[in-house]
Amino acid sequence: MSLALGHPVIAIPGPSPTPDRVLRAAHRASPDIYGEELPKLNQHVMDQLKRLAGTKANLAPYIGNGHTGWEAAAANMFAPGERALLLVSGHFGASWAAQISEMGVAVEIMDFDNAPADPERLAARLAEDRDGLIRAVMVCQTDTASSAAADIPAIRAAMQDHPALLVVDAIASLGCSPMHMDDWGVDVLISASQKGLMCQPGTAFLWFSDRAAARGRTPLTTPVWDWHLRAGAEAPWRFWNGTPPVPQLFALEEALCMLLDEEGLETVWARHAALAETVWAAVEAWGAGNPGIRLTVADPAGRAHSVTALSLPRADALRDWVTTRTGVTLGVGLGAKDPDNALRIAHMGYCNAAMVMAALGAMEAGMTALSIPHGPGALEAAAKVIAARA
Amino acid sequence: MSLALGHPVIAIPGPSPTPDRVLRAAHRASPDIYGEELPKLNQHVMDQLKRLAGTKANLAPYIGNGHTGWEAAAANMFAPGERALLLVSGHFGASWAAQISEMGVAVEIMDFDNAPADPERLAARLAEDRDGLIRAVMVCQTDTASSAAADIPAIRAAMQDHPALLVVDAIASLGCSPMHMDDWGVDVLISASQKGLMCQPGTAFLWFSDRAAARGRTPLTTPVWDWHLRAGAEAPWRFWNGTPPVPQLFALEEALCMLLDEEGLETVWARHAALAETVWAAVEAWGAGNPGIRLTVADPAGRAHSVTALSLPRADALRDWVTTRTGVTLGVGLGAKDPDNALRIAHMGYCNAAMVMAALGAMEAGMTALSIPHGPGALEAAAKVIAARA
Amino acid sequence: MSLALGHPVIAIPGPSPTPDRVLRAAHRASPDIYGEELPKLNQHVMDQLKRLAGTKANLAPYIGNGHTGWEAAAANMFAPGERALLLVSGHFGASWAAQISEMGVAVEIMDFDNAPADPERLAARLAEDRDGLIRAVMVCQTDTASSAAADIPAIRAAMQDHPALLVVDAIASLGCSPMHMDDWGVDVLISASQKGLMCQPGTAFLWFSDRAAARGRTPLTTPVWDWHLRAGAEAPWRFWNGTPPVPQLFALEEALCMLLDEEGLETVWARHAALAETVWAAVEAWGAGNPGIRLTVADPAGRAHSVTALSLPRADALRDWVTTRTGVTLGVGLGAKDPDNALRIAHMGYCNAAMVMAALGAMEAGMTALSIPHGPGALEAAAKVIAARA
Amino acid sequence: MSLALGHPVIAIPGPSPTPDRVLRAAHRASPDIYGEELPKLNQHVMDQLKRLAGTKANLAPYIGNGHTGWEAAAANMFAPGERALLLVSGHFGASWAAQISEMGVAVEIMDFDNAPADPERLAARLAEDRDGLIRAVMVCQTDTASSAAADIPAIRAAMQDHPALLVVDAIASLGCSPMHMDDWGVDVLISASQKGLMCQPGTAFLWFSDRAAARGRTPLTTPVWDWHLRAGAEAPWRFWNGTPPVPQLFALEEALCMLLDEEGLETVWARHAALAETVWAAVEAWGAGNPGIRLTVADPAGRAHSVTALSLPRADALRDWVTTRTGVTLGVGLGAKDPDNALRIAHMGYCNAAMVMAALGAMEAGMTALSIPHGPGALEAAAKVIAARA
Repeated sequence: MSLALGHPVIAIPGPSPTPDRVLRAAHRASPDIYGEELPKLNQHVMDQLKRLAGTKANLAPYIGNGHTGWEAAAANMFAPGERALLLVSGHFGASWAAQISEMGVAVEIMDFDNAPADPERLAARLAEDRDGLIRAVMVCQTDTASSAAADIPAIRAAMQDHPALLVVDAIASLGCSPMHMDDWGVDVLISASQKGLMCQPGTAFLWFSDRAAARGRTPLTTPVWDWHLRAGAEAPWRFWNGTPPVPQLFALEEALCMLLDEEGLETVWARHAALAETVWAAVEAWGAGNPGIRLTVADPAGRAHSVTALSLPRADALRDWVTTRTGVTLGVGLGAKDPDNALRIAHMGYCNAAMVMAALGAMEAGMTALSIPHGPGALEAAAKVIAARA
Repeated sequence: MSLALGHPVIAIPGPSPTPDRVLRAAHRASPDIYGEELPKLNQHVMDQLKRLAGTKANLAPYIGNGHTGWEAAAANMFAPGERALLLVSGHFGASWAAQISEMGVAVEIMDFDNAPADPERLAARLAEDRDGLIRAVMVCQTDTASSAAADIPAIRAAMQDHPALLVVDAIASLGCSPMHMDDWGVDVLISASQKGLMCQPGTAFLWFSDRAAARGRTPLTTPVWDWHLRAGAEAPWRFWNGTPPVPQLFALEEALCMLLDEEGLETVWARHAALAETVWAAVEAWGAGNPGIRLTVADPAGRAHSVTALSLPRADALRDWVTTRTGVTLGVGLGAKDPDNALRIAHMGYCNAAMVMAALGAMEAGMTALSIPHGPGALEAAAKVIAARA
Repeated sequence: MSLALGHPVIAIPGPSPTPDRVLRAAHRASPDIYGEELPKLNQHVMDQLKRLAGTKANLAPYIGNGHTGWEAAAANMFAPGERALLLVSGHFGASWAAQISEMGVAVEIMDFDNAPADPERLAARLAEDRDGLIRAVMVCQTDTASSAAADIPAIRAAMQDHPALLVVDAIASLGCSPMHMDDWGVDVLISASQKGLMCQPGTAFLWFSDRAAARGRTPLTTPVWDWHLRAGAEAPWRFWNGTPPVPQLFALEEALCMLLDEEGLETVWARHAALAETVWAAVEAWGAGNPGIRLTVADPAGRAHSVTALSLPRADALRDWVTTRTGVTLGVGLGAKDPDNALRIAHMGYCNAAMVMAALGAMEAGMTALSIPHGPGALEAAAKVIAARA
Repeated sequence: MSLALGHPVIAIPGPSPTPDRVLRAAHRASPDIYGEELPKLNQHVMDQLKRLAGTKANLAPYIGNGHTGWEAAAANMFAPGERALLLVSGHFGASWAAQISEMGVAVEIMDFDNAPADPERLAARLAEDRDGLIRAVMVCQTDTASSAAADIPAIRAAMQDHPALLVVDAIASLGCSPMHMDDWGVDVLISASQKGLMCQPGTAFLWFSDRAAARGRTPLTTPVWDWHLRAGAEAPWRFWNGTPPVPQLFALEEALCMLLDEEGLETVWARHAALAETVWAAVEAWGAGNPGIRLTVADPAGRAHSVTALSLPRADALRDWVTTRTGVTLGVGLGAKDPDNALRIAHMGYCNAAMVMAALGAMEAGMTALSIPHGPGALEAAAKVIAARA
């Protein structure tokens, strides 16, 4: 019998849950897009997005998704044949490399096998690049698949005075973990609406430094991708190269107000950190009774705060059970070595202690029902973290 | 710090959570209420409401709330000075008695001290009423305050051939626990939209047998209250004595489709039973470590399936903590002897295993944070019930 | 072929069109009704409703519709057998009289045959009532059926020092035409949410003077109807005698903000006056070519500003044509002597010049299509009024 | 004073009005995008989009707007330096040429000065292209700026056996005017969600023939633009190159159901034709009294059915007046020779006779108020067309 009829808990790492307020804000027919409302709204959203990223530099918005962001960034930075060094900590880093390789970028992969990037290896490689052929160092702040989290300031430091741009994919981390783009020396930041930003999918964003802008256009810089046109625009239709995505603007305004003006970014980040620790505590307790249950990223300092990947025997059966029996949806084990025995728990964006306890409680029930061995005390361990951190 | 920003888990015993689908259905301007759509919609909702109650008898809908239902029922059954026997198992039974007493009904209270009604005491009392002065026996199927649940068939049996009407307040039980109005011999059934029916507050319903209808009008039967006019109506405006509550009709149609046509009533009832047991298991585990934590209703057979009342030291502090820190809202200890040390957990209507684990997990965290002593293993005990029943 | 697929123009006199903003505001699950949000919201709505009525006196809200308001008012003012003088200018005045007669009020009807009440006839009648047996003078500010509008200050003046209460049904006028309850000496004002207030149906309101309050309770004053309990309440559940109608409160807050804080009541009233004149101009132009087309109320000073009733040959066929072919819905000719040849055009609440021109344009097309003779230049006459008044 | 508070009538040529049903359908948080619901939904939308275009060929959907569609199409058809012949009938044709020129396409413009393309001129030009250097003939079915409408079958006929692809921009015509892609021999069709499709902006679509597909990839065919990857996809994320635009899919499903399954495409097209004629009749009547008021496209056969451009003295003042005074928003005179004295009236997508009469009525009032000379009888002329066609 199903005990699932109730508000669903979507614990997949994106599209993440959307607040009712945000859905409500987007529930509007388009106004006259040449009227007064839209330019103000658009400008306000752009200002808020810069605050979110910690930058006073340039911002180009795109109708699209994360993949759109990847291509748009590459089309502005590279001529065909130019070289990129991409630090890969999971499936999404590898996909990113594949996508821009097909555009003609000469991508060199430095693979960290689902673990966070090691700044020392990066430093060593850059030291070899005496001619500065590497045009950009690229890294996911959080690889959504492995849940490995890069230490961006450490990577920046490792680059020393190498002229490469530092390009960070923050699709699964912005609005979840700290980002101080200007202070940290990030040149290009890529993100999208449907994870930490708590909105529906449909928009992607590129923030870029003046140093990145100074590279000018390349043969790949077509009118749609050209970030100069967008970042320097005044009318909304120029920001978006045509008709703007009106409902996304309404949604972003509301969501960014919640994050920046109501909860406050410091609290947002602390909430994600606490919820991540809550999940880790449960998984470690379960794992004490079953060596097959373990977090993908061993070092807590290298774990994402928005999603947790883990190995768990018969994970697929467990995911199916919790979805159909309890109303909790967990993420598939994307890019894991043994995907049937891996899954991901998202704690991303619009997520509170209640939702995390729901997800963990459903997993405990499911492992019991499916006779998957697991250590005791996981839920109490999780509750203890909440008690200590809330 | 708060870990509450995320989808709220409302675990108060009404208004209960409303499914997004139901809210969406109600998000419509009124059509022409004299057009073709509304009569069909209205009739379909009335038919579904009869299915929900297990009756082919009469149904009168009211714009109002549960109190409206109480007064409307009394206004159709009693002349001033006529006698009612009201079986009181908690705060709401007592309130019901007070409300109709003020209308002039001579209410005799049989109090069971927050425990379910005892059919034997009822039988004994009715046996004394040789002249048949008691016009109605009235009882809450679930008293929302104490969470005591009456055994309606046993009460009916205890009435034997006494001519009193059997009047059941199912406000907190309809759509949660079985109700077979015709088979059980219930004469008047009272309910409302905002609990097991999963809709917003705003409508109340009276189902009544032909035997109840045969009593005719009384001096209290004003045009608004007259159930004959409504139950026998054809045009929507006559069903509702004026303009119908259009958004409520849209909402009810969607919610009743979910309960009756999609999940199925048997499953709905089984889900509530399983979730109630889940909560009891946790509370009993906590109570093993603290005698102050105990369920209000001792006998499992007398406990409601939609809400659980309990004593818990420093309950008010706990409620406040879980609301502000985790996003879970628990119910106040209404009508408890020591209200500051009592609370209620609702598992009513649109409620799944995830939401129950969220509520229990938040309570575990809160008791830990506030150093409220409690027995171990509560969450695992809860998860075990889910594992066994889902 | 139908040209109706597009945004419908609902020109029936209630439920009137609801602004998208108001629907959106109501699209929320109930929060914890015992939390902090609801009391503030409830109080703010009550304060705004008093501003709308122009009073600092008492306000009792009811879950219900206009008929609920009628019964609630009577239940607080009359003991059975007490006398009311009801000035009837149309179908709704007559229905009001019938409804409270059934409650036992001794209603004396002064009928004005679909025309506005004549203060002189009232004065003469009251002069005969030397013993002050008439407890209340009751009148619709606008009778929604005939569209006759009473001159409330003139009626008050005609009452001189007679002790009767002045009771005004403003269901179809509040938020459309001026109302200064205190300045005008109105004792009891009745209205509802679904017309000038631009909300969905589901709530009714009674404002009452201290003089009305001083009458105390009567045998008809049951707990649901008792206005003292509601008007003097603090907690939301006491205002509403049980669970408050949460979505209605959200909707009312938004709608009243639009009327009182954004557009401003003076402008709201002037808009309705201008739109009414627009409609009259068209109807008079049509009537110049067909004596069967004429406004129900001859004297412009006695016409409502929220709805216009008229005679029009084959009105039913016309209404059907415009609904199915153009997307405009007109009101039926309720209470007209020849209902098949009568209809009503509402210009009530959320209504602008565009909607009025749509309704008139659709009628012009329909009369042409159905070969209903009509004078020329009606639409230009209407446009001229808009040009002059906008 | 403003008479604008009421439902706005948005008569700009996109984003066009969105039906409430469509907004409501999109008001949902994302489900698990890896679950069962999304692939079915996605496939259904794709099937419906093919029906809408009259094709069994290939379809690639894009998150984006019309400009995205332009670039995506070009990126699949052209290598840099390859030649296109673009038939320009207005501002949007010219913008299209400019956008793809910047991508490196060698665009040859054949300008028709805001009039529909002349197939004979095209035939003559293609006859000169003996080496078949022209890779594609490109034309807007409706140029949204001039409202000139191309005769696509005539253009196809004029191409005879020239090997160029026929590329049609149907952004402002699809869902408004007939399109039989396969029967007419269109190779590439470009459209977007926010006009005739009645949805919010955010998605663009490319339908392409097998002949177009056979051209294979070019250096401009990056992973985002590659239509082969999308058209041949199975999982939703491959159709959309990453996370799909979930709310757009919900909206499209509802809107396409309205157009294809409820109203029926033949009726949809006939409705647009009738509404266009309605507008023309009014403008011609106005113009009879003022030579400065005239339709941009002289030949009725060359006028779009979704939008009407016209010259009108002091058009900007008129647009401002009708927006602020009546609630109607008209389109700016984009690309007109004298833009201050030009405007556009859209009758596109979710548009009925009521909305058209509202727009025309508001214009009549505005010209009167602003003393802009105009001929009489325009509104009656419009109503006569509705009477005859509805």
